[in-house]
Amino acid sequence: MNKKALAILMRTRMRPLSPASSSKINQMQLSPGEGNKLHIMGNTNPSTNSEREFEVVRESMNSAITMKKTEVIDAVLNDFSEGYFSLLGENRRKLLLILAREHDLNRTQVHELIKQYLGLEIPHAEPTSHEEEARLAAFYRVEWNLRQALKPMYEVLFERLNTHPGGLKFLSIIRADIVSILEEESIASLRALDSYLKEKLITWLSPAALELHQITWDDPASLLEKIVAYEAVHPISNLIDLKRRLGVGRRCFGYLHPAIPGEPLIFIEVALMKTVARTIQEVLWDDPPIPECEATCALFYSISSTQPGLKGINLGKFLIKRVIDLVKKDMPNISTFATLSPIPGYMQWLLSKLASAERSGSTFRENILEPEEERSILDVLHCRESADGKNAMEIMWNLLTSTNHEWTKSDRLISVLEAPLMRLCTRYLLQEKKRGKALDSVANFHLQNGAMVGRLNWMADRSEKGLLQSGGIMVNYVYRLENIGENAQSYFSTGHIHASSDVSRFVETGRSMMIIDSLSCCSDGMGE
Amino acid sequence: MNKKALAILMRTRMRPLSPASSSKINQMQLSPGEGNKLHIMGNTNPSTNSEREFEVVRESMNSAITMKKTEVIDAVLNDFSEGYFSLLGENRRKLLLILAREHDLNRTQVHELIKQYLGLEIPHAEPTSHEEEARLAAFYRVEWNLRQALKPMYEVLFERLNTHPGGLKFLSIIRADIVSILEEESIASLRALDSYLKEKLITWLSPAALELHQITWDDPASLLEKIVAYEAVHPISNLIDLKRRLGVGRRCFGYLHPAIPGEPLIFIEVALMKTVARTIQEVLWDDPPIPECEATCALFYSISSTQPGLKGINLGKFLIKRVIDLVKKDMPNISTFATLSPIPGYMQWLLSKLASAERSGSTFRENILEPEEERSILDVLHCRESADGKNAMEIMWNLLTSTNHEWTKSDRLISVLEAPLMRLCTRYLLQEKKRGKALDSVANFHLQNGAMVGRLNWMADRSEKGLLQSGGIMVNYVYRLENIGENAQSYFSTGHIHASSDVSRFVETGRSMMIIDSLSCCSDGMGE
Repeated sequence: MNKKALAILMRTRMRPLSPASSSKINQMQLSPGEGNKLHIMGNTNPSTNSEREFEVVRESMNSAITMKKTEVIDAVLNDFSEGYFSLLGENRRKLLLILAREHDLNRTQVHELIKQYLGLEIPHAEPTSHEEEARLAAFYRVEWNLRQALKPMYEVLFERLNTHPGGLKFLSIIRADIVSILEEESIASLRALDSYLKEKLITWLSPAALELHQITWDDPASLLEKIVAYEAVHPISNLIDLKRRLGVGRRCFGYLHPAIPGEPLIFIEVALMKTVARTIQEVLWDDPPIPECEATCALFYSISSTQPGLKGINLGKFLIKRVIDLVKKDMPNISTFATLSPIPGYMQWLLSKLASAERSGSTFRENILEPEEERSILDVLHCRESADGKNAMEIMWNLLTSTNHEWTKSDRLISVLEAPLMRLCTRYLLQEKKRGKALDSVANFHLQNGAMVGRLNWMADRSEKGLLQSGGIMVNYVYRLENIGENAQSYFSTGHIHASSDVSRFVETGRSMMIIDSLSCCSDGMGE
Repeated sequence: MNKKALAILMRTRMRPLSPASSSKINQMQLSPGEGNKLHIMGNTNPSTNSEREFEVVRESMNSAITMKKTEVIDAVLNDFSEGYFSLLGENRRKLLLILAREHDLNRTQVHELIKQYLGLEIPHAEPTSHEEEARLAAFYRVEWNLRQALKPMYEVLFERLNTHPGGLKFLSIIRADIVSILEEESIASLRALDSYLKEKLITWLSPAALELHQITWDDPASLLEKIVAYEAVHPISNLIDLKRRLGVGRRCFGYLHPAIPGEPLIFIEVALMKTVARTIQEVLWDDPPIPECEATCALFYSISSTQPGLKGINLGKFLIKRVIDLVKKDMPNISTFATLSPIPGYMQWLLSKLASAERSGSTFRENILEPEEERSILDVLHCRESADGKNAMEIMWNLLTSTNHEWTKSDRLISVLEAPLMRLCTRYLLQEKKRGKALDSVANFHLQNGAMVGRLNWMADRSEKGLLQSGGIMVNYVYRLENIGENAQSYFSTGHIHASSDVSRFVETGRSMMIIDSLSCCSDGMGE
């Protein structure tokens, strides 16, 4: 790949997606800027499709399902996918509802087969006579037929698209649309279709069908472009940044599917380091990287999925495991595998806690601050302005929501807020649950993969996004190979969250967060 | 790959598989020499497994199905596959029956869900109230549960193996064992399991998950070794032969699955030629190949599947289509796509026809010879030996079954037998059916892919195998891109076999086979 091509790619990079852009990817993607409303970019006549246009697409969808096996099917599927892309949001919704409602089961047939099935005695599984064997065969036949009849007709469309060039990608786009509709409104038939499609995609995207690819500077610009566009955790800002992430001391691995060439479904960025990094600064910007032979730690600092249509399908779990195996084999000196991860839900949770404490009035108020934290906050305020009779939680809320995160410009405020923010963050990560699982989505991801909470890091990400999401705190999840299975298992069955001893102890005793900072390296695998 | 490695590979080539060989492939394969009896090669204690050994494998199979999701599952699956390979034939059969019978459905649960399902009214698909929407959601839930309950428990084992390293290959070996058991005896529960596993394999091996790979002399010896071992149509005899098949004027393409690396599931060999070859001699041995720029025809002269466990799963259809697309794109001068194919069932069919005509006595005897064919045969015999009152069919039978195909050493006999053998072969290919499809397996394969019968070639394969299978006759099936879909469709729905006009006409009028030889090239796409 030449430098010019890449320079062009960096100029036209797709984050934030520009509505004026008309690249192929954009045409086939929902615009994130449009929120959950379906909308096709680059369409020159954006108001609506005619009734006739809609009927043509509906007709091609119908043919794609009912047509008998033949060569023509390829043309029909092409028509359908082109037609689908030409539809605007509301019409896509209409079409998907037709698919869910009019192409599901033949329930009359199901009822008939059930009647047949119930009419048959369950024969003995080990027949002793020829007659019994024949009865058993008949029984299996009816059972098979019933199983087939319970498959929705839209399965045919999914199966056909899966074997059609570009079809798997198209299915993932269809599912992205469905997911976005279901986020807005609950429609039982569409939800049933979504569950079915998701199950199919899980089968088709099984790790056995995926290829682990190390992404390097030698890869085609068209592939690197995807990395630039889809990097969701720490946006890639320029050519040097991209090159650095693929250079010495860094690795980038993606899962590719043969049917979606040149576009990883998910990719992970790795930094080879002497110790587990405490700030994203060290990983992204500090120069130069250490010689690779000195590395003892592989730090996963970003994992991004490129397909919104694969929501809920955990490919990352397998990717991380395979990357650990690969790195271990290639570099036996590396013994620590950890992440440096954002905590995307922390601030939202904390602010709503503070606000609801405020609303509930002084009598029933849950004071989520420790007395000495409260004292320090009030103290610092006396030096700045009148407290107006406000309590510490209210003051904290005001500080955290101030424009431009003004508190981060004062060393004093940073130092006063460190103790409560770190302590409450530990509580958030280790104790706040939703349906028995960690409330924080990134935490839940790593915990279900078998990682443990290793260390919290203060002022680890001072970017706008980092401050907004978690007050700048980041967390190291540690993957200890010998415990991955056990951790995943107990998290799965009981929701138990494994944490380094110091992190756990902190929550139990409520002592100052400083302890986490001094956490013992050997015992917790942080490699320091 | 160096020459030495290849030389070693050619010395140890696995056709015929030597029982003394203990290469990994052999350990994991059924020995073709053993017919349908399950038998593991290279086992030093070949008599039997102990009861204890069997119970250990059974236990690991049980764990592989029932164990909850956890890391341990990988170890369990490894145990199970190792254990399975250590079992001898009879014990494998016993284990597979246990799998089919004891790990299928929970039919009590199915019956309960059916009761629930029948108790629910089928709600309106487009609910108008919130209540109706909730009822609909509940209905879909029960339907989903019923669908899940109808999945046999052994699906868990299949799914887990599919995502386990080496598991897909293992599944294909398990299925090869099942197929071989079912060829010996019909067992309803095992047949039900086989249908289920086959359906799963079809999904996992969808063309979308397969990678088309051009096999060249630069490929690793370990891959080329597979080509040598599995070439099923025209065995590769030595290094020069292999190199020639991958050299100028030749192509070899395989379908690879990411989970079975370095081993094509199926591969096809192509010769680039000026005209459609009439004999396999021209393709395999005549030197030198023409310059590629002069080629107008791509001749598929061999297609071999490497996995007996994929029986009944037509990957060849997709492979041929993709290869045609690829060659067309790379070499626009090539406009004819045809095969030079064996007719494996012809002699068997003909001999049984002749024998049964003999058995049925002179009154009801169907004389399958034309009067002039009969005359020529009797004529030639008078010159050789006493006819002993034998009729022409009996004489023909004797000639065709004579040791060492003696008739092929006499120009006179060759010339006399040409007319009836070619005519009857046309009848065999075009008119002999089994369940509405061509009786000949290779014919059925190409016809269902949308090819037509182009031309029959006399004395096209004088190898022992060629004479034994089809009296040396080979056939060109022609793939005409514009007709593939239509042909496949009409063959699929009505069993109609498309043939070049001269081949068809010949069968209708019963005229001398010479006509086929003079068939018009342009009209039939034979590119001469």
